[in-house]
Parts: sequence; C-alpha cells; structure tokens
Amino acid sequence: MAKPVVGIIMGSDSDLPVMSTAAEVLDEFDVDYELTVVSAHRTPQRLFKYSAEAAERGIQVIIAGAGGAAHLPGMVASVTELPVIGVPVKSRTLDGVDSLYSIVQMPPGVPVATVAINGAKNAGLLALQILGGTDYGLREKMRQYKKDLQHMVEEKAAQLEQ
Amino acid sequence: MAKPVVGIIMGSDSDLPVMSTAAEVLDEFDVDYELTVVSAHRTPQRLFKYSAEAAERGIQVIIAGAGGAAHLPGMVASVTELPVIGVPVKSRTLDGVDSLYSIVQMPPGVPVATVAINGAKNAGLLALQILGGTDYGLREKMRQYKKDLQHMVEEKAAQLEQ
Amino acid sequence: MAKPVVGIIMGSDSDLPVMSTAAEVLDEFDVDYELTVVSAHRTPQRLFKYSAEAAERGIQVIIAGAGGAAHLPGMVASVTELPVIGVPVKSRTLDGVDSLYSIVQMPPGVPVATVAINGAKNAGLLALQILGGTDYGLREKMRQYKKDLQHMVEEKAAQLEQ
Amino acid sequence: MAKPVVGIIMGSDSDLPVMSTAAEVLDEFDVDYELTVVSAHRTPQRLFKYSAEAAERGIQVIIAGAGGAAHLPGMVASVTELPVIGVPVKSRTLDGVDSLYSIVQMPPGVPVATVAINGAKNAGLLALQILGGTDYGLREKMRQYKKDLQHMVEEKAAQLEQ
Amino acid sequence: MAKPVVGIIMGSDSDLPVMSTAAEVLDEFDVDYELTVVSAHRTPQRLFKYSAEAAERGIQVIIAGAGGAAHLPGMVASVTELPVIGVPVKSRTLDGVDSLYSIVQMPPGVPVATVAINGAKNAGLLALQILGGTDYGLREKMRQYKKDLQHMVEEKAAQLEQ
Amino acid sequence: MAKPVVGIIMGSDSDLPVMSTAAEVLDEFDVDYELTVVSAHRTPQRLFKYSAEAAERGIQVIIAGAGGAAHLPGMVASVTELPVIGVPVKSRTLDGVDSLYSIVQMPPGVPVATVAINGAKNAGLLALQILGGTDYGLREKMRQYKKDLQHMVEEKAAQLEQ
Amino acid sequence: MAKPVVGIIMGSDSDLPVMSTAAEVLDEFDVDYELTVVSAHRTPQRLFKYSAEAAERGIQVIIAGAGGAAHLPGMVASVTELPVIGVPVKSRTLDGVDSLYSIVQMPPGVPVATVAINGAKNAGLLALQILGGTDYGLREKMRQYKKDLQHMVEEKAAQLEQ
Amino acid sequence: MAKPVVGIIMGSDSDLPVMSTAAEVLDEFDVDYELTVVSAHRTPQRLFKYSAEAAERGIQVIIAGAGGAAHLPGMVASVTELPVIGVPVKSRTLDGVDSLYSIVQMPPGVPVATVAINGAKNAGLLALQILGGTDYGLREKMRQYKKDLQHMVEEKAAQLEQ
Repeated sequence: MAKPVVGIIMGSDSDLPVMSTAAEVLDEFDVDYELTVVSAHRTPQRLFKYSAEAAERGIQVIIAGAGGAAHLPGMVASVTELPVIGVPVKSRTLDGVDSLYSIVQMPPGVPVATVAINGAKNAGLLALQILGGTDYGLREKMRQYKKDLQHMVEEKAAQLEQ
Repeated sequence: MAKPVVGIIMGSDSDLPVMSTAAEVLDEFDVDYELTVVSAHRTPQRLFKYSAEAAERGIQVIIAGAGGAAHLPGMVASVTELPVIGVPVKSRTLDGVDSLYSIVQMPPGVPVATVAINGAKNAGLLALQILGGTDYGLREKMRQYKKDLQHMVEEKAAQLEQ
Repeated sequence: MAKPVVGIIMGSDSDLPVMSTAAEVLDEFDVDYELTVVSAHRTPQRLFKYSAEAAERGIQVIIAGAGGAAHLPGMVASVTELPVIGVPVKSRTLDGVDSLYSIVQMPPGVPVATVAINGAKNAGLLALQILGGTDYGLREKMRQYKKDLQHMVEEKAAQLEQ
Repeated sequence: MAKPVVGIIMGSDSDLPVMSTAAEVLDEFDVDYELTVVSAHRTPQRLFKYSAEAAERGIQVIIAGAGGAAHLPGMVASVTELPVIGVPVKSRTLDGVDSLYSIVQMPPGVPVATVAINGAKNAGLLALQILGGTDYGLREKMRQYKKDLQHMVEEKAAQLEQ
Repeated sequence: MAKPVVGIIMGSDSDLPVMSTAAEVLDEFDVDYELTVVSAHRTPQRLFKYSAEAAERGIQVIIAGAGGAAHLPGMVASVTELPVIGVPVKSRTLDGVDSLYSIVQMPPGVPVATVAINGAKNAGLLALQILGGTDYGLREKMRQYKKDLQHMVEEKAAQLEQ
Repeated sequence: MAKPVVGIIMGSDSDLPVMSTAAEVLDEFDVDYELTVVSAHRTPQRLFKYSAEAAERGIQVIIAGAGGAAHLPGMVASVTELPVIGVPVKSRTLDGVDSLYSIVQMPPGVPVATVAINGAKNAGLLALQILGGTDYGLREKMRQYKKDLQHMVEEKAAQLEQ
Repeated sequence: MAKPVVGIIMGSDSDLPVMSTAAEVLDEFDVDYELTVVSAHRTPQRLFKYSAEAAERGIQVIIAGAGGAAHLPGMVASVTELPVIGVPVKSRTLDGVDSLYSIVQMPPGVPVATVAINGAKNAGLLALQILGGTDYGLREKMRQYKKDLQHMVEEKAAQLEQ
Repeated sequence: MAKPVVGIIMGSDSDLPVMSTAAEVLDEFDVDYELTVVSAHRTPQRLFKYSAEAAERGIQVIIAGAGGAAHLPGMVASVTELPVIGVPVKSRTLDGVDSLYSIVQMPPGVPVATVAINGAKNAGLLALQILGGTDYGLREKMRQYKKDLQHMVEEKAAQLEQ
C-alpha cells in the first residue's frame, strides 16, 4: 500500500457519513490518505501524538472534522506545522453554528482552513489544491475536474431549457 | 505562602482585566489560588502539563477563560479529572457568542461548567461553592455573602423609593 | 434507602427523557440522588422550599434542567448556597438558544454551572467531579471513567483503520 | 399621596435610565405608580413578597425590567395573577437578545406581556391601555395621545417636504 | 349569543392550529370572543376597519397572530387604543425569529404585548388578566387556575418521586 | 418644478441621514423625486392615503426606509401596485437584523424589493434600473455609472500596486 | 414562440422546486420568460456571458435564485445594468440565513432586489410590477390580482366566522 | 524585484488595514507577494482576468478579503485551480457574520479556505503552510515561528506568576 499524504481524522465515528465524502474525492484523484478517529476531548494524548508525528510520517495535509465545541482541528493545528483543514460537522442542537465558530474563529498565529458546515467534499478538494503546489499532474487533474463540473451544469441547463 | 487550591488560567494576558475579577472574589474569601497564562493554541504542551499535574499539586478546581475559538477550558477538562469552570471572554468580532459556544457545547463525557460571557466573578464564586463541599466555614461565608448582596439591593431599593 | 447527595430537578416531566441521562451517570457511579419536578413558573413556592431546604437534607449539588425562558436553575441558585448545575433543554421553537441564554447569562453574584444544550449526562459527570473533592474513591472512579472513554475511542479508531 | 396602581420594578438600579421612561409616561397621564428595585437573583424573598402582596395593595399592573438572564418578569408573573409587562434591558454582551428570550419565551400558563428591548416607554403605555379597561377617561386620553403622535409626525413631514 | 369582548385575529387561516389555543382558554373561562382572518398585507382596508371599529363594538382586548414579516399586531395597535397582544407564529424558514422581531420591536408610542413564539395560549391568559381589571370574578378564576397548574405539577412530581 | 416619479419615504426623520443617500443618487441622475416622513405606526391613515394615491400622482417607484419592527415598506406594498423598495435601517439594539427580517420576509402575494441594511444608495440605483425599463437614456447612464465605478476601483488598485 | 422578457436563472437544478413558482406567476400573467441553470461557481464564464447579453436579447428583468454562499444574483448584477431580483434559497445547514445575507448585503453601487427566503413567487410578482412601468395592461392586471387576494382572504374569514 | 508567489487581493481599499497584516507575515518570512484591489461587484472583468491568469504568472496561493455580501474569494475560486484563502472582513452592520457566511458556505466543488473574521494574519500563515509543501526551508521557519509564539506566551506567564 502506498504511503498516505493526507490524514483524514474526525472526533467521533458518528461523523463518518459526513467525512467520508472527503475520502471519496481523494480516491477519485488517486491520492493516498489515511482515515481514523481522534477525539480531542476523549483521547487528548492520541491527538498530540497524531499531530506531532504526522509530518514525519509523510502526511502533507490534515483534514479534521468535528461538531459542537469542535476543538479537534484547532488543537491539531496548534501542534503541527502542516496545513490543517477544518470541517464543521452539523450539530444536533445548534445547526452547526457552534461547530463553525469553534473551528473558524482561531486566534492569530494558528490558522485552520475552514470549509462549509458538512463541507467535507470541499475539504478533500482543498487538500488536492494544496498538494497541487508540488504535483503538476494533480493541478492539471483539478483543471479537468472544474471543466467536468462546468459541463455537468451546462447539460442540466440544456435539459431545463428544452 | 499557602498552597493554592484554585488554578486560574487564561488563553492570553489580554484576558486579564476580565479574569482578575475571579481572583478578587477568592481574595475576598481568603482562598489561595495561582494565576497564569496557558494558551491552548500557542502552548499545547504547557496546557497538557498544567492539566495533568494540577490535581497532584493540590489544585481542586480550575477556572479557565478564553475568547473566540476558545479551546482552553475544554482541553483542560479533557486531561484532568478535576472540575473545570469555563469563562467565555467577549470576542472582538462576534460579541462573545463564539467563545460561549466553543466552551459550553462540550460532547458527552467531558463537562465544562460554563458561566456567563465575561462572567469571571461568578466563576470565582462557583469555585468557592465547589470547595464548600469540604469546607463548611466556606459554605457559611457563602451564606453570609448572599445576605450581603441582598442587603445591598434592599438599600438601593430604599434609596429609590424615597 | 441511602440519603441522596444530588438533587435532579426539572421544570416539566416532558424534560425527563433528556434529564434521565444525568441520573444514569450517577447510577453508574453508585451515587444516591433524588429526582423530581419543580416548576419555577407553576410552583414558585415549591421552588423556594426545595432550594432552601436542600442543603439541610444533605444534598450537596443540585442539577436543574429547563427549556425556553428557563428560570429554574437561576432561581434555585438565588436561594441556595450549594453549587447548581443548569441544563438548557432544547426548546420547540428556538433550538435551545433561548434555554441556553436564560441559564448561562446570570448576573454577578449568583453563578449557575451551565452545560451544553441537552447535556444532562455532562451535568451528572460534573456533579461527580464536584463530589470528588471530598470523596477520593469517586475521583479515582472518574479517572477510570476517562480511561474507558479513551479506550472506546481507540477501539473505534482501530476498526476504522482496518 | 395617592395610592399607586402601577408597580415599576427593575432588577438593578443600573436599569433606572431605561426604566424611568415608563415612569415618565405614567406621570404624563397622571397615573400613580411606585418604583423600586427587586432582584430575582439577589433578593428572591423580596421578589416573592412583592409579587404576592401587589394586588392587595391596589396595584393593577406590574412593569418589570431586567437584563441578561432576565428572570424578574417571569418570576413575578408566576406568583401574581395581575398582568405583568416585561422590559428586556439591553445587556453588555449579547445586545439584549438574551434579555428578550429570557422574558418572552415563557411556558404555557404564565404569560409576560413583552415589549421591545429597552422599550420601557411602551411598557408604560401598555399599562395605561390595560388600566383603560376600567377608566374611560384614560382611554380617551390615550386616543388623544395617539392623535398628538400623528400630528408630530405630520409636522416633521411638512418641514421635510419644504 | 353574547357580545364578544376579545377579538382573536390571524394573518392567514394556516395560523389557526396555533391561534385556536387562545380561543380554548377563553372558552374555559367563559369569556366571549370573536375569531377571524385579517391579513395586513392582503386585506389592508379590512385591517383598518377592524381596528378602528373594535372598541365601539365592545371588544376590550385584541389578540393578533402572524408569521414571517408579521405586521398584523403592530398595524392593529397603530389604529386602535385598545391593548393588543401579539403572537409570533413559527415561520417556515427562520424558526419564528422573524415573526418575533417583527412583532416585539415596536417603536416608542405604539406597544404590542408580545408573548412567546406560538404562545397563543398565553395570549388568551394575558387577555383574561387584562379583563380581570374590571371583572373580579375573572381575577378569582385566574387565581384558581394558577392553583390548578400548581397541583398538576405537584401530582406529576409525586408520581416521579415514587 | 418637475413632477416626481420616485417617492422616498421613511418612518421617522431620524432615518434621514441614511435615506438621503437615495435622494443623492437620484439627483446625480437628474430624476425627480419627493421625500417625506410617513409612519406606519403613528400615521396609519397617512400611510394608506400616500400608498393609494402615489400611482395616480405619477409616482412609478416607492422607496421606503424603516427600522426595528419596520412595517412601512410592507404596508405600502400591500396597498399600491407599484414596485416598493425597502431599506432596513440599522436599529439601536439588534444591529438591523430586526429591520431586515421585518422587511424582507413578506408573505406570498406582496413583494418588497429589499436592499442591504442602511443600503439606501442601492435603493436609489434600483429605482433607476426600474425606471430604465421605459427610459433608455437612463439605462445608458446606468451603463456609464457602472463604468465609472470600475475606473474608480482600477485607479485605487493602481495606487496600491505602486 | 414569443421573445422572453424575464430571465429566471438558478444556481443548481435542485433549486427548481422553489424557483418554478416564479415561472408560474409569470405564466398566470401571460408574460414570456426563459428559465435555465447558471452556476456562479461552476460555470463562471456562462454567468458572465448570460449577464452581459441579457439586455440585448430583450430581457428586461432577471430573477436569480441561489442557496448557501449565494453569489449568483450579486454577480449577475455586477455585469448587467438590468434590475436583478435575488431569491435566497433555504440551505441545508443554516436555514437560509447564509443565502439571505449573501444576497441582500450588497455593497453600494450594485443593488440586488432581495425577496424572502424561498420567496420565488414574490420574485415573479416583483418582476411584473417592474414591467408594469411600460405596460399599463400589466399594471391593471396586478391591481386585479391584489383584489383577488383580498377576496380569497375575505372568503376564508367568512368561513371561519360561521 | 522577485516574482510574487502569493496574491493578496481585497474588495475595497477600505479593507487594507485588515488585509495588510497578511502582507506583514509574508514579509516576515521573506516570501514575495503582490497586493491589489479587485472588486467582484465593481470590476467583474478584472476579477475574471486576475483569477484566470494568476497561476500562469507564478502565483501559487491567493488570499482574498471582502466584507458584507463577500463574493470575491468564492468567485476567484470558481475561476482558478489554485488554493484560495478567504478573509471575512468585519462589516458595518452585521459584525462580520454576513461576510463569514458568504465566504465559508461554498457549494461542493469549489472550496474556499476560510479563516476568522478579520483573520488576515492567519491567512498569511496558512499561505506559508501551503507553500511549505514544496519549500522545506519555509516549513522549518514555520516550526521556529510556532516555538517563538510559545516562548512569548511562556514569558508572559512567568511575568504574571511573579
């Protein structure tokens, strides 16, 4: 098996239905990733270890999803020097606003690249764009991906206009 | 100097004007405390060390204040088994709603006892109530404190009614 | 029957499905509690009596849950000198934001230890942490509880990584 | 001195600048009132006594203003059978939304007639409309008051149109 | 048929399931009312006529419910000198916050007595409290009603405590 | 003096600093307008008369600004068949959210063309775009206006790039 | 087939159930329109081309609906000098507040006439009102439409009053 | 002059005080950038041209800041295949919530890496982390930067503890 370059982690396995769309996008682009559960609140040591060792293991981007008081993305970003993408997972009681604020409102010095609530697919695409800085084949695939999106919309438009 | 039983920590020294009211209440009740800066995002190791060693050093309650994506109280609570009181500090752009949600919306298993936005004085009082479980002198003082509050209001009422 | 040390009260019996998770946690730790309905708005005298007599009856922590204009936790805290934990119950029309604000935004002098919306399980755990100040067996159990949480997450992680 | 028929109460004397506009309106209509401080959280006994005795003393409407976790109007309404008008006072950290939700979101069975945030003048006018049910002179004055408002706007319109 | 003293109006017949609880309370207290649809936006003339003639027809309190940009209660209050109770009806897209703000945030000079989102039952009770100013039998019934509420809660508490 | 084709109205003369920017834009395009105060809540008859007669007097578009429970734009739209542009004026306590919701959330059948909070300048431009349907000179001027905006930005960009 | 004068566009074909009500209103008034998909984010060139050529093709008003970070209406308005009506489509995670803010909060210089969340029917009516400036038959039909609305409400009122 | 690898753009020169902190961070790390004004709404062609040509000119990351209906970051991301970092600039009337939602809530297929409201400094740091994928010297500097942050906090902590 190839060495993963993207780490996808989530605070709870109940976040998997949302977070798996990030993995699907990476599969589509043939980029290797690892996927696991790391809970900021229940496994703080694991969080530290994962974040501290990710770069050495060859990980280049980390995607972290969490809901509610979503501390996982920000805490990972506090330990690693890798870019961290945060996915606010829709919460049971505040419609994901709590998740969004907890992830995006990071203090100066420690950024988290936040995407839309439940926007794990875009987290995957953003990871690919970041990797595209060193991998021009990937950047070319991204250009093609955007064209495909465009054609899909144009076809739907054509159907609707009939 | 006496051994502190309450730890007051904050994410940044800019939180001091808010958090010092917690210290003032503890002074008023002659309870020993320590006060320092621990940043979840800039000093994650320090956060871990502080949280892991607090109980051994004799700390019985931790008061943690932070603003924005306020991860400090929740992360401390993830490491220690002591009760943790969280103070959402009013933020520059979202009026403290981000701080409040980031602190109060903790997942099942890891509670943070959250007080009002900028409510550090109440954090101090809550710490005293918690300590009052083992210290009946303290509980008696708290009873007196509530009576004093009552008299203060009654005096103001009397003035207004004149 | 043993004398209860925790009082769990709620504004309406419709809050029971949420509030019973607090009781379950106390059962798990073998801590005795009482559980009843006290409505701030429909039984104000009962609220006063309950709050004024709780400490004398041996109660050491009160957990109060309510929704909407949730006045129960704050009013109990205004009468007793015991620590009061407030559980904002998700409301029918404002997703629990009204409950949360009504409970957490207490004025200086009268704290309520607020947990997440519908976070009654954490209210139970917080009560245990407070009782742990005088009961080192309880504190030890809490340390074990946190380890169990950690193992549960690690097992799920292992399954996901396969 | 005449016997007051309206009771104006507030949670703190810091609410006086807002609440005094209610008194001014009653002065304008020559309706007798009393004005004092009653804190739900610092003087709960006083709150009960005030609410329980108001009707006997001849009070016909109670105006209660409070900010933050604003429990005063709702708790007064829980004790008295008189109509209670609630004034949400603008709070320091949540712009009065917390005050508004804490006052208006009362459960079925215990209404509070809520006016706008800081809307104490309208609380005074509403009290007058309620008293107008038994006092036709008052109702006639209210009719005149509305005409005066209308003329004031028409004059400003005329000035602007020039 | 007796002459109605309360007018219950709503912006659309789709508000009937919410607003009928106001009528039920009035039925319970044997107070005569009328109930109809008046749309601020679709029947503005009807709104004016209704509001202008209500007092002459013997109506003493108007209860008006509406959702979204809920202008009905405020516009009725702008025309009549009677007390107007506003019921924010839960809206399809903003959970009733739009209805609440549109009704409660009235400018100085024109009050609307606002109750909770979907709080039509309390609107009925508030109308009864207002009518109680001239009808001591009604006030006595209200006292009894509050006692019944209290007993109901006490019975549920007794069941839960078993 | 030329016959006005745009009516600019506002709920209070305190809205003038915001609303005058609509007038300035119309002046710039040499389009005649009238400007006055019409209060939905203090002068409801005036509101009806103004709305009912506007079209006959040659008005083709109405711009209405109001704050808080901002009923003016919606009520004008309920009476006239002309297009009505609503300007939510920033309110003292809810930052204009109440004004925005009260204006934009109109029920099916009665549209209000809502612009940004305090966006009176855009209200003026929108009125010009609507008039441009019958006035091709105006449409040409609008095209030029957009080009001028573009050049202004390009000049600022050039300065910044130096 | 007649030349369309209204362009109805939407960001995704999933917006069709909402946006088709705009088309239905135009059908009812016998006004010709075109309806298609234009995605600001997936087909930016198409967006530019559509907006730049609409006026030349005889389009007089554009109705644009989108959800989430809803850029379509504002970007169309940035290119064309025609009036643009924006329909915020209810989003999956923030109840349409994100759509509303993204559409209505346009900067000075580029207005979008915003209607209610999911308010596509009103977008159609607003387009008709705008076209009514040059088409007095249309304006007359609008007058009749408002009368029909009124009668419908009056009938429902009559039924309810029975 | 060296060829810039980061493009910093903003919707208006009034955003410069916020956005210049991104430039300062890049200066500190000796990374070349360009800084200019591109308005989505006033210069749509310029937006397209800039976005389409950025990659060819050697730009590897784009930082885009905007306020209100902040379309700039999302529209740039719709055209380029480079990673785009969005900075929500605090708005005059909604405290930056509108800016945040307009930037972060992008639809699947077109990500924007969003940072905190006014968080331009973190946008700069995130750009550096992204560039660090190909530039290990940069990654090493980032590691040092995080250590410096840590020391700064520790020094402040030491001062406070004295």
